[in-house]
Amino acid sequence: MTYASQRAALADVVAIPVTPFTDDGSIDRAAHRALLRRMLDAGVHTLTPNGNTGEFYALSADERRAVTELTAEEAGERATVLVGVGHDVPTAVADARHAQETGAQMVMVHQPAHPYVSDAGWVDYHRAIAEAVPALGVVPYIRNERLPGTRLAELADTCPNVIGAKYAVPDAARFAGFARDAGLDRFVWVAGLAEPYAPAYFSAGATGFTSGLVNVAPALSLDMLEALRSGDYPGAMKVWEEIRRFEELRAAGASANNVTVVKEALAALGLCRRDVRPPSKPLPESERAEVADIAARWCP
Amino acid sequence: MTYASQRAALADVVAIPVTPFTDDGSIDRAAHRALLRRMLDAGVHTLTPNGNTGEFYALSADERRAVTELTAEEAGERATVLVGVGHDVPTAVADARHAQETGAQMVMVHQPAHPYVSDAGWVDYHRAIAEAVPALGVVPYIRNERLPGTRLAELADTCPNVIGAKYAVPDAARFAGFARDAGLDRFVWVAGLAEPYAPAYFSAGATGFTSGLVNVAPALSLDMLEALRSGDYPGAMKVWEEIRRFEELRAAGASANNVTVVKEALAALGLCRRDVRPPSKPLPESERAEVADIAARWCP
Repeated sequence: MTYASQRAALADVVAIPVTPFTDDGSIDRAAHRALLRRMLDAGVHTLTPNGNTGEFYALSADERRAVTELTAEEAGERATVLVGVGHDVPTAVADARHAQETGAQMVMVHQPAHPYVSDAGWVDYHRAIAEAVPALGVVPYIRNERLPGTRLAELADTCPNVIGAKYAVPDAARFAGFARDAGLDRFVWVAGLAEPYAPAYFSAGATGFTSGLVNVAPALSLDMLEALRSGDYPGAMKVWEEIRRFEELRAAGASANNVTVVKEALAALGLCRRDVRPPSKPLPESERAEVADIAARWCP
Repeated sequence: MTYASQRAALADVVAIPVTPFTDDGSIDRAAHRALLRRMLDAGVHTLTPNGNTGEFYALSADERRAVTELTAEEAGERATVLVGVGHDVPTAVADARHAQETGAQMVMVHQPAHPYVSDAGWVDYHRAIAEAVPALGVVPYIRNERLPGTRLAELADTCPNVIGAKYAVPDAARFAGFARDAGLDRFVWVAGLAEPYAPAYFSAGATGFTSGLVNVAPALSLDMLEALRSGDYPGAMKVWEEIRRFEELRAAGASANNVTVVKEALAALGLCRRDVRPPSKPLPESERAEVADIAARWCP
């Protein structure tokens, strides 16, 4: 896969699939595959196994590999796979190499969990991963509002496979500045805070956005993308208004129920169990009906 | 070890040792042991291997175990060992059980790296770990300013081995409220932001504090503890003034150089290499002299 086709795959709805669990707590592979097929059939072209919506930090190393493998198998020629990697450098490198072996085309590097991140050390961390998989596209996931855009440019100077960035700071002006300092045309800019911020990010140069909502209602995410691609901001905002309550439920309490609400909707639709792992928690019964009502409206 | 003696060990300087590296990047076990002995000889009684100052998130599973083992060996009967555990629940449980096998008396549970933490899921996460090691004291490390103190009480209702908390929000009033909502006398309160906040936290009920500075100048940390124990706040603030510049260098840039500055001082004293792993980074040469001057003043 060329950098050009990797770039094209990022300028799209970048789906972050959930990881469904069985009643014994292990990964429900059948439900997982069915959910992936449902998104592919709806027209999704880019899948990110092991993202935060996939409960990355609650998966073991073996589980991360299983998720990557089944996602690559389901994607086949129909979608580009962008595998989330993180933790310490050797672990991230091992997961990136495994991603390559499965046929995945790119990796998304999670924001380091390490609390003491220097700007120069951020570059070193990503460079060590990018250099280990020169044939894969590499997409840093940036949640650190302090990182200057020039550091991304510095990284790409020695690692040309760093072709895009998932930027996830809830400040469109900061994103606009970061992208320009890094090089607006040099990278593909993925709005990393999904549909709620996608119109604002697109207005500043993003051409793709991540989505957890797409697990539930792929048509809505794709409708927003189509509107944004054609510069139809009022059309995009119509979708925004439609999904507002659902996304507000996900965002409440510092995103405590970010994945929980998505899985609740999928459970209401009979597509997987509602179970999430600690430190997330299923919704209390009293809050489930509202999510079910929304899901039923979208997927009658 | 009884809960009472575990509690006593927390009401002290809770040292977070650095993890020194050799020139090939592996753990420098000889330097690590020598640094631990230096602290023990100075009068330190509580050691936390695999804390953030030990670059927890940059260590592999094998390295975490090696650090725990050598720390337990050096501690022997001279110190209580509180092992940092984290990541997904099965990994944290495995590390906690390993800690117990080495003779460690307690575990400190790192703030979950998972971005979607519900209050109830926070309790589940810690309960799963605490129930796996009922003979060990368990100390949650709380950096989440949104967590209500009542959740810690709820956790301890079913897990009596949760005997203390390391609270690390830079807001003494919030700490005061949290401790009272959880139960001021029910838990030992460890000021988790080290010497810079220790006097403020002690004024509100803390009886111990963590320290990275203690790697460099154990006498200063112990002097502050002694002053605080005797209610001598002006004396504690004399130490605060002495360490202010060093701690400000560590805190700058959202703590980018938190460990870096400690290792730079140790390198200046000839006690270990300055190397830190990405996403941290050694200080540029131009900034090293100031740290060396401070270290030389403290350890002539």
